[in-house]
Amino acid sequence: MSTDKHYQGLINKYREYLPVSDKTPVVTLNEGNTPLIKADNLAKKIGLDAEIYLKFEGSNPTGSFKDRGMTMAVSKAKEEGSNAIICASTGNTSAAAAAYGAKAGMKTFVLIPDGYIALGKLSQAMMYGANIIAINGNFDEALERVIDISKNYPITMVNSLNPYRIEGQKSGAFEIIEALGDAPDYHFIPVGNAGNITAYFKGYEEWLAINKSTHLPKMMGFEAEGAAAIVRGERIMHPETLATAIRIGNPASWEKAERARDLSGGVIDSVTDDEIVEAYKMIASTEGILCEPASAASVAGLIKSNKTKAVKEGSKIVCILTGNGLKDPDNAIKYALADVKKTSADINDILRAMNI
Amino acid sequence: MSTDKHYQGLINKYREYLPVSDKTPVVTLNEGNTPLIKADNLAKKIGLDAEIYLKFEGSNPTGSFKDRGMTMAVSKAKEEGSNAIICASTGNTSAAAAAYGAKAGMKTFVLIPDGYIALGKLSQAMMYGANIIAINGNFDEALERVIDISKNYPITMVNSLNPYRIEGQKSGAFEIIEALGDAPDYHFIPVGNAGNITAYFKGYEEWLAINKSTHLPKMMGFEAEGAAAIVRGERIMHPETLATAIRIGNPASWEKAERARDLSGGVIDSVTDDEIVEAYKMIASTEGILCEPASAASVAGLIKSNKTKAVKEGSKIVCILTGNGLKDPDNAIKYALADVKKTSADINDILRAMNI
Repeated sequence: MSTDKHYQGLINKYREYLPVSDKTPVVTLNEGNTPLIKADNLAKKIGLDAEIYLKFEGSNPTGSFKDRGMTMAVSKAKEEGSNAIICASTGNTSAAAAAYGAKAGMKTFVLIPDGYIALGKLSQAMMYGANIIAINGNFDEALERVIDISKNYPITMVNSLNPYRIEGQKSGAFEIIEALGDAPDYHFIPVGNAGNITAYFKGYEEWLAINKSTHLPKMMGFEAEGAAAIVRGERIMHPETLATAIRIGNPASWEKAERARDLSGGVIDSVTDDEIVEAYKMIASTEGILCEPASAASVAGLIKSNKTKAVKEGSKIVCILTGNGLKDPDNAIKYALADVKKTSADINDILRAMNI
Repeated sequence: MSTDKHYQGLINKYREYLPVSDKTPVVTLNEGNTPLIKADNLAKKIGLDAEIYLKFEGSNPTGSFKDRGMTMAVSKAKEEGSNAIICASTGNTSAAAAAYGAKAGMKTFVLIPDGYIALGKLSQAMMYGANIIAINGNFDEALERVIDISKNYPITMVNSLNPYRIEGQKSGAFEIIEALGDAPDYHFIPVGNAGNITAYFKGYEEWLAINKSTHLPKMMGFEAEGAAAIVRGERIMHPETLATAIRIGNPASWEKAERARDLSGGVIDSVTDDEIVEAYKMIASTEGILCEPASAASVAGLIKSNKTKAVKEGSKIVCILTGNGLKDPDNAIKYALADVKKTSADINDILRAMNI
């Protein structure tokens, strides 16, 4: 354990609540400790008299909540003697795996389906030095190969099946309880693979059990309509949504998400792409926070719930913004609110363009 | 002042050291409180037996250190009764201004030279709802118009000439002193407009004066070679460097940067674009941190200084990484370390591609 005074990541901060020991080599980029921002402009905009907080997970070192799980998964991999990590991912998981692999001094392998050609999303993992391997097959096959390889070589699989991921991710709930002095009344969160709603609920349950909070928040999970497997009660073979980070048709933590919903008196519902985009733009223009489109599913869910009066006035509400909008510059450009006005350099023309 | 328990931005944390009062409306996105990451891999890689720390300012809400100054500038603008803010900027300043303008409920105007067409860099400000006005003139003319307008209308200029910017930015030095228990021995920092080196030095001086530290760090500022006005002792009419965030030929805080250098026994030197790119890639692959290319000028400066033994072994060294690499996806793709290997879905082919 370090003797330095400053914040050094969630394992050092919450080690008594995590499956680590003094022998665990802590691989950290000082993840966690993310801003919880009071969103009074947003509350006013949607006409809800409540305390709304946005937890901006885009401030994590690789720009998404995945860092919380990856610090645990990679630290445990190192403790267990692995000399490499592997995952199937084309998005935030690959970025987080590659960053923590680099920090750990371990090789990182990322398997992707060959048809996948959007270099932008992969460039982050590549910069961190990951070995990217495109296989002639689909995502499910890539994941199967990852599992096979991790069983037969000293290479640790860090996809969401890795149990330490959820252990790290539950720290987000601890931070919220510490910041607010108790659990909130409602916890809105995007649902893709359903690992994050599972992790937050685990964190809330564990701290309720030791009286660090007085109640569980209602867990309000929102899938994208085109990938709403849990809502529809069936696997979606070809999930479609612009919110790529939650474009998942067969959530790995499906039952656990339903358990969180049922035990907390919450819901798992869906929002349309239009509702996601509306929320994504509203968060930026009212609160000054640019998140990934998928992140906005939490706020879109709040807006939807507010319309049906499913959220009580005067409540404390936390919405998780899972990732940084800078990860998706294409959508930022596409949905940018304003056009660029052109004018001469004459001051009067400029004032006219400013409409003042 | 808030009664909540959690971190709520640098004005609330450091208000006694800032020109604010209880009447100042605090406009915050919980900026500051950024990770200070121990970089042992990097130290080993460059062969320096010292404690190196990277301060990752890319974790700020809009992805750069500019947020520290903007929370001050916009809070003071609001206090003084402005109903809008204005700046000339095509980069990080426009993003920060627009975000804090949105949070404050104030209009934000961004003037840019008409020839400027890289929408990517502006999309962030546009998402936050800024009014972008492209004038038929160069950057200097845009800045002149901004100054004119701010003198004659209740619109506050938030370019670096705004004195509150440096007040907010000095908080980075406070955080470093708190984290390390004292000032470091060396403080490496990119130099563009020279406001940030000025601000950090101000912070270090102020806390030395009240005995919160025992010494000043040597201020080690590094310009890009193609924009090295201070090093060359002359204004550069057409500055050129891939590190766009420091592509400035006539630094606004020129004399103050020289003062910081002289009083601290530091240097202001330059690094080439090749050296910047080498450092940028090294930071990502050894430490798992993706910064803006301009940010890497600090580490490039450390590498250069280490080659000439200008840095003592056993020292404590802080390098400021000023911005988030996700802001510059084009360079991330261009310099990504690895190619994608293609293979069949056969496990043996995959293992061969993995080279294990």
